[in-house]
Amino acid sequence: MEEKNYSIDTATQELIKKAKSDNVETIWDRKAAMKTPCGFGEKGLCCRICAMGPCRISPVEGKGAQKGICGATADVIVARNLARMVVGGTATHSDHGRDIAHVLHMSSPNGNYKITNEEKLLNLSKEWGVKIENRDIYDIAHEVAEIALNEFGKPFGTLRFLERAPEQRKKVWEDNDIRTGAIDKEIATIMHSTHIGCCADAQSLIHKSMRASLADGWGGSMIGTEFSDILFGIPVPRETEANLGVLEEDQVNIIVHGHEPSLSEMMVLASEDPQLLELAKEVGAKGINLTGMCCTSNEVTMRHGVKIAGNLNQQELAVLTGAVEAVIVDVQCIFPALAPLTKCYHTKFITTSPKAKITGAVHVEFEEEKALDSAKQIVKEAILNFKNRKKEKVFIPKTKSHATVGYSVEAIINQLDKVVNSELDETGTLKPLADCITSGVIRGAAGVVGCNNPKVKHDYGHINLMKELIKNDVLVVTTGCAAQAAAKAGLMSKEARKLAGKGLAQVCELVDIPPVLHMGSCVDISRILVLVSELAKFLNLDISDLPVVGAAPEWMSEKAIAIGTYIVTSGIDTWLGVAPPITGSKNVVDILTNKAEDIVGAKFHVEPDPYKAAKQMVERIEEKRKALGISVETIKA
Amino acid sequence: MEEKNYSIDTATQELIKKAKSDNVETIWDRKAAMKTPCGFGEKGLCCRICAMGPCRISPVEGKGAQKGICGATADVIVARNLARMVVGGTATHSDHGRDIAHVLHMSSPNGNYKITNEEKLLNLSKEWGVKIENRDIYDIAHEVAEIALNEFGKPFGTLRFLERAPEQRKKVWEDNDIRTGAIDKEIATIMHSTHIGCCADAQSLIHKSMRASLADGWGGSMIGTEFSDILFGIPVPRETEANLGVLEEDQVNIIVHGHEPSLSEMMVLASEDPQLLELAKEVGAKGINLTGMCCTSNEVTMRHGVKIAGNLNQQELAVLTGAVEAVIVDVQCIFPALAPLTKCYHTKFITTSPKAKITGAVHVEFEEEKALDSAKQIVKEAILNFKNRKKEKVFIPKTKSHATVGYSVEAIINQLDKVVNSELDETGTLKPLADCITSGVIRGAAGVVGCNNPKVKHDYGHINLMKELIKNDVLVVTTGCAAQAAAKAGLMSKEARKLAGKGLAQVCELVDIPPVLHMGSCVDISRILVLVSELAKFLNLDISDLPVVGAAPEWMSEKAIAIGTYIVTSGIDTWLGVAPPITGSKNVVDILTNKAEDIVGAKFHVEPDPYKAAKQMVERIEEKRKALGISVETIKA
Repeated sequence: MEEKNYSIDTATQELIKKAKSDNVETIWDRKAAMKTPCGFGEKGLCCRICAMGPCRISPVEGKGAQKGICGATADVIVARNLARMVVGGTATHSDHGRDIAHVLHMSSPNGNYKITNEEKLLNLSKEWGVKIENRDIYDIAHEVAEIALNEFGKPFGTLRFLERAPEQRKKVWEDNDIRTGAIDKEIATIMHSTHIGCCADAQSLIHKSMRASLADGWGGSMIGTEFSDILFGIPVPRETEANLGVLEEDQVNIIVHGHEPSLSEMMVLASEDPQLLELAKEVGAKGINLTGMCCTSNEVTMRHGVKIAGNLNQQELAVLTGAVEAVIVDVQCIFPALAPLTKCYHTKFITTSPKAKITGAVHVEFEEEKALDSAKQIVKEAILNFKNRKKEKVFIPKTKSHATVGYSVEAIINQLDKVVNSELDETGTLKPLADCITSGVIRGAAGVVGCNNPKVKHDYGHINLMKELIKNDVLVVTTGCAAQAAAKAGLMSKEARKLAGKGLAQVCELVDIPPVLHMGSCVDISRILVLVSELAKFLNLDISDLPVVGAAPEWMSEKAIAIGTYIVTSGIDTWLGVAPPITGSKNVVDILTNKAEDIVGAKFHVEPDPYKAAKQMVERIEEKRKALGISVETIKA
Repeated sequence: MEEKNYSIDTATQELIKKAKSDNVETIWDRKAAMKTPCGFGEKGLCCRICAMGPCRISPVEGKGAQKGICGATADVIVARNLARMVVGGTATHSDHGRDIAHVLHMSSPNGNYKITNEEKLLNLSKEWGVKIENRDIYDIAHEVAEIALNEFGKPFGTLRFLERAPEQRKKVWEDNDIRTGAIDKEIATIMHSTHIGCCADAQSLIHKSMRASLADGWGGSMIGTEFSDILFGIPVPRETEANLGVLEEDQVNIIVHGHEPSLSEMMVLASEDPQLLELAKEVGAKGINLTGMCCTSNEVTMRHGVKIAGNLNQQELAVLTGAVEAVIVDVQCIFPALAPLTKCYHTKFITTSPKAKITGAVHVEFEEEKALDSAKQIVKEAILNFKNRKKEKVFIPKTKSHATVGYSVEAIINQLDKVVNSELDETGTLKPLADCITSGVIRGAAGVVGCNNPKVKHDYGHINLMKELIKNDVLVVTTGCAAQAAAKAGLMSKEARKLAGKGLAQVCELVDIPPVLHMGSCVDISRILVLVSELAKFLNLDISDLPVVGAAPEWMSEKAIAIGTYIVTSGIDTWLGVAPPITGSKNVVDILTNKAEDIVGAKFHVEPDPYKAAKQMVERIEEKRKALGISVETIKA
């Protein structure tokens, strides 16, 4: 059965089948229609940066064009293309962070956006030297927001959040001139350096990309996460369900899809509005079932337990159930294909951001000033659309899994406190986690993150990699579409500890956590940076000394490339399941998968097979343990 | 003879011939080696924004893949690629402007960088509301510089220089939400909007591109020009010579190439240093001959009359003369090909900017703090290299032309004052120019700007277009490589008025100007914006009402795309001699070459034939004249 080649997920398989009988296309059909991808593009050897070309460098040395018309070599072309991917991703995450900072800047006690976690705001104020005594909390918030907004464009100085890294890591950055300045400036400067006739040195371009990538992880993404927590609350463990089976046959189904919580938080509120619930009943529905897709889903499930409808490759399938009244989107990872697809069903496809209009969608501009009203208007549209649902077209798969989500750094520490003997030890620290790792009860930790990509069987890379890692006593933290894959596969259920090795299973039981922890959306990978930094500081180590690794088994976006780059630049080895478009340059491959280690103490690995990748990751963890003198053998001896 | 197909310029033809006998490659060889360019790329139908692809859309409707894997249509892919070109160009010009603002910020009475034109600084201070009374000029300069640096990243508000436009134009921008905010923010936001799954609407993407492009012309470029004038002086008419014949057989030949005057100004000083001149004599040279290439050349010829060695496509040819001791570069439009080429001769190839390292070049980092010392060190390197020149390899073409350059807006006004009866009329205004235009003595003005591109016979587009325009009584203003083409072809000599129509010739004689005015480097197109704004304000018109047009007959860079877009968005019709990579989308073509007029009162035209383009431009000018009631017929009647 063809569907089985596309996804390991049965709900997905069922709906791919329905797509065929409904005679509509999905991402897999378009992938097939694309036939063989361009080899020049795949290898990074195509240059369209100026109009003298386009130029294509022959991948065969000595045969065909070996240089672009300007004289750019394969190394230069590959490195320039990569650098632009990094800033594409950095800009995308950071522009999201900027929007959240603007929301904090407009927060008010009587407005749509209020401060939910004063403590986090006050802690950040102290960190940034903002006076807090005898001040209105909103005054403080607005000053902090303004400082954050200036992180995007300040003419002088480096990013404030870089200070959160361990001293050893800061020295690596300092020594290598990787301390990034204002976020937008780094982006603009890379666009400049990659212009025709500017930087033509692969090493230098990769160095610049590393610096710019820090503006993502330690800049825009971290601002996004911190400010979302301040505004909407720090996630705590909650129960939820995941997969398309969360759609309800007898309710108004609304899917929020995209990224920024400023929209989805209001959608949560609006979907609980008594008048609208009443209206839903009037149109014959039993209620309003708000569910999420992609990172928007991660944001609202972490803070409200909103059910997860699916990840990237399932966005069209949700519409295909015929049971979705509206898909509401803001920015990023929204397939333009939803516009024609929703026209084949009764589903309303509503765009809300001026940054992401989509031809064929209904655009209802989401104005933060009247956020809740906008959200209510949208929910109303969905409710009124319930009557248009065609029963004969409805098919909702049964599949869904239980998951415990909500593991912010604060929640993890809080959870660890449960095993602290409070009479002997301090609470509120990462000591228990450090003890588990140094003692060898768990070997280390892995961040498994990233997208879906039709080049890889849907969820196959994520799930098999995670299973192998936990089996080997490696704690997995996850975000983004990887996290949703885990939730759907039951790996975020506490029972999943059965799949873990003995040590990890024991820790999971004691601490009462699943072996795979949902840490949020893609911008929340900044939570992982904070976690590893705190752990390193506790152990007086550099991040690169820790037995931690990262992976993006099914990545596809520029954001993922930016993430991978800042993770490596932060000192964590990263495994990619899909080869990035760099194979046309041996030099670039060598720098990223080899020489980078000499500079930042970490490098990229490319391994499509999740079993092999897991083995390599565990080996790398053991290498780190050995270097620290805490390898299992060492402990046993 | 093949060389004649490559260039209309005899010096160029001669050196292409030498390249063959020296057995070294040039841009034309690499162009030939590239064979047929990729049709998908040329039409804008190739998408490499995420790693699900690369995707290629079939240019044939209904045949082959019609959508990318995410569902992006041809319209979306073409528009996204275009938007990224616009911000590539905007970032490049603006990052240059930022550097100049930093130089002003570090200027000091005893430092390397001083204030040369206090009046321009004081005028700008008044414009920006900076207190000037009882303040040290450097204090003022530093405050103005800081304000400028914040134009790149301020979280709120729109660009200050937009206020320079006529009220009617500002209203167009306001009504269409095109008033651009902080420069870097616009760049980052477009990188976000063009990310996978974000904006998927061609109209919206082009709208965003228009806004971002204003951040170039009215932002970074204008800051670059203004601050360069403050630091290094406002250009005034000067005599110079142009073409490779300016190289001297018996002198140390140094070529400055790139863009930012902060380097080249110091090189000018260093090349006049008595000790270094002495050293030059010691090594057997009669002197130091500093000449320029590309926009760096424009900067120093406008302010010091430094001779112009050539434009973009001649950079390799300069090395090929065998008579160049050193090529010193900073950023942009520097062919990486110079690195291997200079190794075939004795020429030292020295990069100076951390933003533009080039594999194979010698990197001597130019530190602004010790700018003159850095420059002297570089000049010394060149002098010491004189002995390595191989006489048998030397061939300097005889060709060079005389040119009068240096037509800043201030210089043009000053020149016009010569025909003002100072007892009757005010001096220091554009009234004489306005009178010439409204009376029909000259029909209008055209900005002819941009690069070289091996898709077009070198300088053919520039020269024939300019000749046709001046023949039709259209005053030509020019910058960049187009300006250098004009200088080389003698169109900037005052005798060139013989080639002009009767009216224009008469004006040239009266005002004592050539019919083609050199207004500077590519960032100096901001001078053209100021000129047309002042003219429009004087006549109480919108810029789009004026009988003025723009053209880039041989463009190739993203900067040129950004320029074209801000020129159109400023209300001036623009002719491109090379088709941009948009032909894969009928919609995008329609928006840019048709519908744009409804929004911003101007549009793009694509016409490779300079004769046809000239005809269309003159017709357009006549249309504008007719609408204003000043067409020649109207006047005659």
